[in-house]
Amino acid sequence: MKILLVGASGTLGRAVAAELGARHDIVTAARGGGGVRMDLADASSIASALATVGMVDAIVSAAGHVAFAPMLEMTDAQWQLGLDEKLMGQVRLALLGVPHLRDGGSITLVTGVLSTEPIRLGASAALVNGALEAFVRSAAVELPRGLRINAVSPGVLVESMDAYAPFFRGFEPVTAARAALGFARSVEGADTGKTYRIA
Amino acid sequence: MKILLVGASGTLGRAVAAELGARHDIVTAARGGGGVRMDLADASSIASALATVGMVDAIVSAAGHVAFAPMLEMTDAQWQLGLDEKLMGQVRLALLGVPHLRDGGSITLVTGVLSTEPIRLGASAALVNGALEAFVRSAAVELPRGLRINAVSPGVLVESMDAYAPFFRGFEPVTAARAALGFARSVEGADTGKTYRIA
Repeated sequence: MKILLVGASGTLGRAVAAELGARHDIVTAARGGGGVRMDLADASSIASALATVGMVDAIVSAAGHVAFAPMLEMTDAQWQLGLDEKLMGQVRLALLGVPHLRDGGSITLVTGVLSTEPIRLGASAALVNGALEAFVRSAAVELPRGLRINAVSPGVLVESMDAYAPFFRGFEPVTAARAALGFARSVEGADTGKTYRIA
Repeated sequence: MKILLVGASGTLGRAVAAELGARHDIVTAARGGGGVRMDLADASSIASALATVGMVDAIVSAAGHVAFAPMLEMTDAQWQLGLDEKLMGQVRLALLGVPHLRDGGSITLVTGVLSTEPIRLGASAALVNGALEAFVRSAAVELPRGLRINAVSPGVLVESMDAYAPFFRGFEPVTAARAALGFARSVEGADTGKTYRIA
């Protein structure tokens, strides 16, 4: 398969590239660094990256930031970051990606454990992840041509615990390599509308 | 209790007013019609309505529109309606409402069945409802002073079937009076972070 991987330069994205790259041709996209340039917060950037890449069998996203802050102190700009980038950035990637997918192709988005397991500072992440998981369930019933869509919801990554451990006490971290398996199930399996919880 | 009810003029809002009004003092707010004027899409309108109403024991929302349209034909403005009004309008109502709630008070938001049961044309509703349910779970762990927050997710209303029946074939509609019971459980019960599914 030819697979477009967005967010390829992040911790999770590198693990997804390793997992899928063992069997498939990966075209990477990211805001900076190597590959095709794509800024999820900018719909025209998504569209032009998709046009550059051409037809693919799978679109995979391991990208999208949200702000972590005390809920009652969050600014409009902090809420907006998650809405524009991780939420609507990935939704737009999915919708704009449809004409670039071959029949039977797939879309895989990334959410995260906070949609179901809340922590302090995590309200925006929860909102965005919950939105994406419900979107994926609903989008699955409207996609044409046998296209599929799923989400992967990883727990906090082992590789991120240096920065995140104080916020995730008691959570059992998962390796990025394990989280990447969810992307393989989505791309190479037959499911649609599903969220793979890697916890 | 003194309860602020937003969206009091809608089908669901009137049923919530009847259910809670039997035992409590209801102050109503809506975009038009009677009561205090509040436009959920406008943060300053929410803030000034809250200031007008003063301290309350509960803030209840039965308000917020989303666009229903084929997912692949939705415009940016149609996505934005749900994000601005039903999603972030209710989130802002909750956050701005905190200082106006007496200790131990509660916030109740409205979602809907499409977060878990997808239909064609329902992608924006699903996204918004899923976001709200995850937000409520997460907000519950950050609210101070014993404040609680829940959501009510009603099925399609009996009273709305004239307009919605073609989109909800096979769904068992619920009366607005039954859906209103979820609001009573949230306001008068002890739960927090919960979504009451009235289906």
